Amino acid sequence: MVTANPLLIPELRVMLAEGDVAGLREVAEELHPATVADFSEGLDDRELWQLLDAVPVERQAEIFPYYPMPRQVELVKAADRPHLGQLLEWMAADNRDDLLRELDPEFVDEILPLVAKAERHDIRMLLSCPEESAGALMTTEYASLPADITAGEAVTRLRTQAPDSESIYYIYVLDAERHLVGFVSLRDLILAKPTALVSDLMQRDPISVRVEEPREQVVEKLARFDFIAIPVVDEKNRLVGIVTHDDVLDAVRQDATDDAQRIAAITPLGESYLEAALVTMTWKRGVWLTILFATAAVTAMVMARAPLTHAWLIAFIPLVIASGGNSGNQSATLVITALSSGDCKLSDWRKILKREFALGLLLGTLLAVPGYLLALVYAPTPLQALVIPLTVLAVVMLGTLVGSVLPLIFRSIGLDPALMSNPFVSAIVDIVGIVLYTTIALFVLD
Amino acid sequence: MVTANPLLIPELRVMLAEGDVAGLREVAEELHPATVADFSEGLDDRELWQLLDAVPVERQAEIFPYYPMPRQVELVKAADRPHLGQLLEWMAADNRDDLLRELDPEFVDEILPLVAKAERHDIRMLLSCPEESAGALMTTEYASLPADITAGEAVTRLRTQAPDSESIYYIYVLDAERHLVGFVSLRDLILAKPTALVSDLMQRDPISVRVEEPREQVVEKLARFDFIAIPVVDEKNRLVGIVTHDDVLDAVRQDATDDAQRIAAITPLGESYLEAALVTMTWKRGVWLTILFATAAVTAMVMARAPLTHAWLIAFIPLVIASGGNSGNQSATLVITALSSGDCKLSDWRKILKREFALGLLLGTLLAVPGYLLALVYAPTPLQALVIPLTVLAVVMLGTLVGSVLPLIFRSIGLDPALMSNPFVSAIVDIVGIVLYTTIALFVLD
Repeated sequence: MVTANPLLIPELRVMLAEGDVAGLREVAEELHPATVADFSEGLDDRELWQLLDAVPVERQAEIFPYYPMPRQVELVKAADRPHLGQLLEWMAADNRDDLLRELDPEFVDEILPLVAKAERHDIRMLLSCPEESAGALMTTEYASLPADITAGEAVTRLRTQAPDSESIYYIYVLDAERHLVGFVSLRDLILAKPTALVSDLMQRDPISVRVEEPREQVVEKLARFDFIAIPVVDEKNRLVGIVTHDDVLDAVRQDATDDAQRIAAITPLGESYLEAALVTMTWKRGVWLTILFATAAVTAMVMARAPLTHAWLIAFIPLVIASGGNSGNQSATLVITALSSGDCKLSDWRKILKREFALGLLLGTLLAVPGYLLALVYAPTPLQALVIPLTVLAVVMLGTLVGSVLPLIFRSIGLDPALMSNPFVSAIVDIVGIVLYTTIALFVLD
Repeated sequence: MVTANPLLIPELRVMLAEGDVAGLREVAEELHPATVADFSEGLDDRELWQLLDAVPVERQAEIFPYYPMPRQVELVKAADRPHLGQLLEWMAADNRDDLLRELDPEFVDEILPLVAKAERHDIRMLLSCPEESAGALMTTEYASLPADITAGEAVTRLRTQAPDSESIYYIYVLDAERHLVGFVSLRDLILAKPTALVSDLMQRDPISVRVEEPREQVVEKLARFDFIAIPVVDEKNRLVGIVTHDDVLDAVRQDATDDAQRIAAITPLGESYLEAALVTMTWKRGVWLTILFATAAVTAMVMARAPLTHAWLIAFIPLVIASGGNSGNQSATLVITALSSGDCKLSDWRKILKREFALGLLLGTLLAVPGYLLALVYAPTPLQALVIPLTVLAVVMLGTLVGSVLPLIFRSIGLDPALMSNPFVSAIVDIVGIVLYTTIALFVLD
């Protein structure tokens, strides 16, 4: 919400009430589509359609994708069917795909016959790509040329294709079977002599992604090579679409929020915090709190079997458990972020475990010292006080090892490390931590 | 590391040993600069300079920024000074600024006289921008035009300016005092009649950022409006630079990793997990573990004063503490991610607290039920078992409230909520949680 200007809503309502179509058209046509969406979001569905109807459907299709997704779904349900068909025809293919994935499949089947046949084919193709794949992120609108024309002819052809704003800057060079053989930037076409051949200007063997490649790899490649767009090809290297920089940026921002929420043991909300329904939120947090509660219940059962009897040992329980939990949480987060940013690969596991073993030793020793000093205050003898530093060292090492091993294991068996690590790390560290504590206490005190 | 190909290193070493300059030139000139950097990273500094010296300094300046920052610093120190001056002249202004910020200021003062005067002015200007501001992220290379020329003349002028690859796609329209009055896309220039005036083609009042604006707002605007670049202006609306999409994407990815690490109580590494020195890592984790340890020590001291004497109550200590900690961690992460993604503002605090109060009640009740069932197994009477569900409910509500209030407070006093929340949430929830537990136990058991 960069430029939301709630002050405009009353003025808009006056125009809507007076049926001032010319005024509404000016508002919806002059500003950036994102700005139009921002300030009109406060209108109700009927008013909003009245505003949009003041401009041609092409312009409506530009503004529409800037509303938050739940609002888009609501607006679609409030629209009349033939109008909706036209709107879908004009929308950018990737935005349309995002929207259709949010609607009931039956509803989609109902409205598809209202869309022109060529677009329908595109829609079905994009919808068939698995979520989180390059295909689900791509658009089918791109500029392409053959290799055997001149730069001058190329610019003339681009003028007639007049492709979508963002997709004209890289032009893909295809052979007769639509195989991707190269690409040329609009910059290079403009700077070249008009008589130069595209085949001489183009970069050969362009970097591309396969349509089924996971979206992380699309992000990684586009970010590494600083592209505005990256071409998407099928198994025969035929161009099927492009993924543009703006969709990658949105994906990265969404993934960052989702990952942070997963690490904190929340099923990603996938929508705005303030807009999520209370029931949804209770479910998405409650399910993981319950799992974590179950693991804590096991800890309680273990403790009930091997009770600690000395009052001073009891007072140190939270400290011992927290030391393991905190170091485990650190290690798990480091490994999860390193894996998801592409910093580490699964094959680096030896290096990772070696690092974490060394860090556990260093950090455990670091905490053992104040632990011993504190224990001296409460323990009957300096020898008995040794229980605390020994346990702290053992538990911190346990935390770093479990925290680094589990994300690697989850990744290797295809589970999401961000989602799974937290409950399991805390379960193992808590339960084994308590067992270590009682064992070390028994050993030292005897 | 998308395409790192360690197999090439032996072949490269043969070419280097044989002084095969033509072969080296081909390798360093044909591929994408990022690819050249990826596969040559395994060479030592001397070999790497030998490879780079096979191509002209313009090309070296394209490849150089793709090495990881610590390696760039190392290479700079191994380079001879006049060569370094030339390399800096040719580097893109934003990449150069990133590099110079990593070097000792004295070293920078030593090498600056080797750089041409015009570039030196740019360097000083960018270095003077505060870190994390739009100015620190921007580049001074952009294309600009006056308003009173035709599209045809504009394209001709662009041919002679031939600006940097990414910065030609939006051309900024300036008046005689360099005030930003509009912008026109290369696409619109190409599609327009050659006789059309730039002043008729351009978008007026373009969206821009101020040079001192924090980088979060640059990200927010560029993402919202799907721009390839966003202009940066000074306090008098004069154009001073642009921030391009690739730098925003890098910033977002770095911020996501940093934030996740802060939430897990780690000072952001700011470099690759596997490359960070063990001492650095011990420090960046140890300082927060020690702070968390200190808060756990306070919990231990509180417990030593008001000891729980029933064995079954002792067994439930970790469960009670974990319930509060987990729900607090969830709330803090939700509020932190909502604030940093722009989803919530500080002014939404009433709504946030109302939500978290309701969620605390719901989630606390959800956990109180299994808590009671488990307590029935261990407590002497069903009445005494009530201690557990009552404490769980109280502690979960405490967790959600503290977890949501603290990030808001830290943000409002200008501290980083991601960094500060974790230690304070766990300190307050643990200590107050134990006090609640002993108080409720005393009350129910008496």
